[in-house]
Amino acid sequence: MIYLDNAATTYPKPEKVIETINFHLRNLGGSTGRGQSQWAIEISRKVYDVRTKVAQLLGVNDPLRVIFTYNATYAINMVLKGLLKPGDRVILSSMEHNAVVRPLRNLEKRGVELVFIPCNAEGVINLDTLRNQARQGAKLITVLGASNVSGTIQPIAEIGKISYDNDILFLVDGAQLAGFEPVEIDNWHIDAFAFTGHKGFYGPQGTGGVVLSSRLASLLEPLIEGGTGSKSEEEYQPVFLPDKFESGTLNSTGIIGLGAGIDFLLENGMDTIASHERMLRDYLIENLEMEKSINMFGLLDSQKTTGILSFNVKNQDISTITNILDRVYGIMVRGGLHCSPLAHKTLGSFPYGTIRCSFSHFNTQDELLYFSQSLKEILRRG
Amino acid sequence: MIYLDNAATTYPKPEKVIETINFHLRNLGGSTGRGQSQWAIEISRKVYDVRTKVAQLLGVNDPLRVIFTYNATYAINMVLKGLLKPGDRVILSSMEHNAVVRPLRNLEKRGVELVFIPCNAEGVINLDTLRNQARQGAKLITVLGASNVSGTIQPIAEIGKISYDNDILFLVDGAQLAGFEPVEIDNWHIDAFAFTGHKGFYGPQGTGGVVLSSRLASLLEPLIEGGTGSKSEEEYQPVFLPDKFESGTLNSTGIIGLGAGIDFLLENGMDTIASHERMLRDYLIENLEMEKSINMFGLLDSQKTTGILSFNVKNQDISTITNILDRVYGIMVRGGLHCSPLAHKTLGSFPYGTIRCSFSHFNTQDELLYFSQSLKEILRRG
Repeated sequence: MIYLDNAATTYPKPEKVIETINFHLRNLGGSTGRGQSQWAIEISRKVYDVRTKVAQLLGVNDPLRVIFTYNATYAINMVLKGLLKPGDRVILSSMEHNAVVRPLRNLEKRGVELVFIPCNAEGVINLDTLRNQARQGAKLITVLGASNVSGTIQPIAEIGKISYDNDILFLVDGAQLAGFEPVEIDNWHIDAFAFTGHKGFYGPQGTGGVVLSSRLASLLEPLIEGGTGSKSEEEYQPVFLPDKFESGTLNSTGIIGLGAGIDFLLENGMDTIASHERMLRDYLIENLEMEKSINMFGLLDSQKTTGILSFNVKNQDISTITNILDRVYGIMVRGGLHCSPLAHKTLGSFPYGTIRCSFSHFNTQDELLYFSQSLKEILRRG
Repeated sequence: MIYLDNAATTYPKPEKVIETINFHLRNLGGSTGRGQSQWAIEISRKVYDVRTKVAQLLGVNDPLRVIFTYNATYAINMVLKGLLKPGDRVILSSMEHNAVVRPLRNLEKRGVELVFIPCNAEGVINLDTLRNQARQGAKLITVLGASNVSGTIQPIAEIGKISYDNDILFLVDGAQLAGFEPVEIDNWHIDAFAFTGHKGFYGPQGTGGVVLSSRLASLLEPLIEGGTGSKSEEEYQPVFLPDKFESGTLNSTGIIGLGAGIDFLLENGMDTIASHERMLRDYLIENLEMEKSINMFGLLDSQKTTGILSFNVKNQDISTITNILDRVYGIMVRGGLHCSPLAHKTLGSFPYGTIRCSFSHFNTQDELLYFSQSLKEILRRG
């Protein structure tokens, strides 16, 4: 089987991640922050180590500002719903994922104003329009770090500067960016950076989180309250980090597995992996660009994208092609809208969506050659 | 090491759970409900199987009413915050965990009225008071199925009848009850039953959920919105189950592991495991009751509790004892308030809390004999 749906979740997971999870499931009982037994302390220490790894990797000076959540979607909702009130103005790009759009469309019904900044047909945000809108004031700017449809990377540092200059809070949906490109949360004035553990960090599902700036952390209402293992005598949620935003039993085993994923990433070199994925993207473009029926979406310059390539085929049904690729050739790509109708409207691929190929460290040129040949065979047969 | 903190998280996990997680991490890429590849379909099918297992075990006629969440705390918050509005009246017991109390204390500040129903010193709710309060009307009754401090099991079926008779919605915090005693959600008129995967179900952390009645499911606003893999063309959250309440990538591997935990539970017999834990509790009571300095809290009749025993020691510091037990004797129990200040106030163990021993299928009489002897040795040395 050839797996080309790494933008959904990376596969395979590094052996080290699997072994770490296996070891902890087998050998350590307890929960982080619960109790003072040797095991509980060891688990708490290991979870803290992962906080530190995430903080270092994402350019954050205080690991306690790293909040672990179920997934990036939870992290984004926590920020949007814990912050925004009727009358607030929110600026967002026209490439956003439904993880941002759906909660905002709901908040819009309650009186939150949404201002969409157009992106061009390659998915790149228009900074001039953004700057003009920001000057008119807003509570929050929210931008997808990299598109899950086209891989297009947004100029986050520049958007951060615009937010900062206009005293607007800045949320980045970093689900596709984290682990691929260097991110400097503090230097780029990012107030909330949502990440997932099971994509570019090569960890397990059920992990992810958000990094908060101190100012946002104090403004934000927690979405979930409950047992934190701290201030157990209190019937009110603690106000310190990370406990304010982490209630109930954390997925300690998963988080420790995520730590092993980050180790894998750093040992192999984030830059090296990104270069490898970009090389694969270029190679795939090269293999497909002579096919006249294939229409690629987004930027062709892989230096400005993550390891994702989206395309469709003239007069062909996407799900028929992806089904044949899967059932006949054993190749898993992803067809459709990828939970991002807005992005497809921007890129010109709505309502049918695209065939999306997305890569990881583990993919090879040989796999993509086989994929290209298989696809061409399908197209020739019509 | 002897592990007696199973009310926090069960340990060890069954070999089958570890192997299942290991297998899925290694052999299946993809996410439930995302894409149509063979693997994605296999994962979706397996996650659906776990929904079915949970539904069958908890007496629910439709697996789609089983919503998977990060943990029970998330599930409880989702119900409380998605339902309650200023002016609503909520009836709760005086044994509730902070997973219920903290969000409700916050909602109280916004105009939700809280009515606490006293429980006696053994932790049992006063049904007459509850009935009287219910007659005065309320939006919701919320009760802890079994206490995480004393193990006291509440008369859930009777409370369900009171809720139903008075047309009040009924939420059960089933974190300690699920997997221990038979639960009949539909027959008992429970509108929301929150459960966790990593306690009595013997699954991994990062799993849990809530079972909703159809009427509550349609009333309830989702706390989290985003990608669901369904209705991808829509910028609004879908309204059908389970997607309305499940956004972002689910912890598929964890959920499939939870399924293996439920299989373990059913293969060994839920009744058999409960009887075993009750036998251990009786045995421990027998071993400790002659120690005059030991004061046990809650019901002594183990037929009316889960496998939890809480006590303190006259004039002795709890954390000193639990530390010696851990460091010198290799025994992990839990000392303190267990995120339940209200329950300790009810039981008479506030503010110092208790030493809590909690059992699973894997504990033995020999372990408890060693624990009792070790504790007595510590007490004799003073």
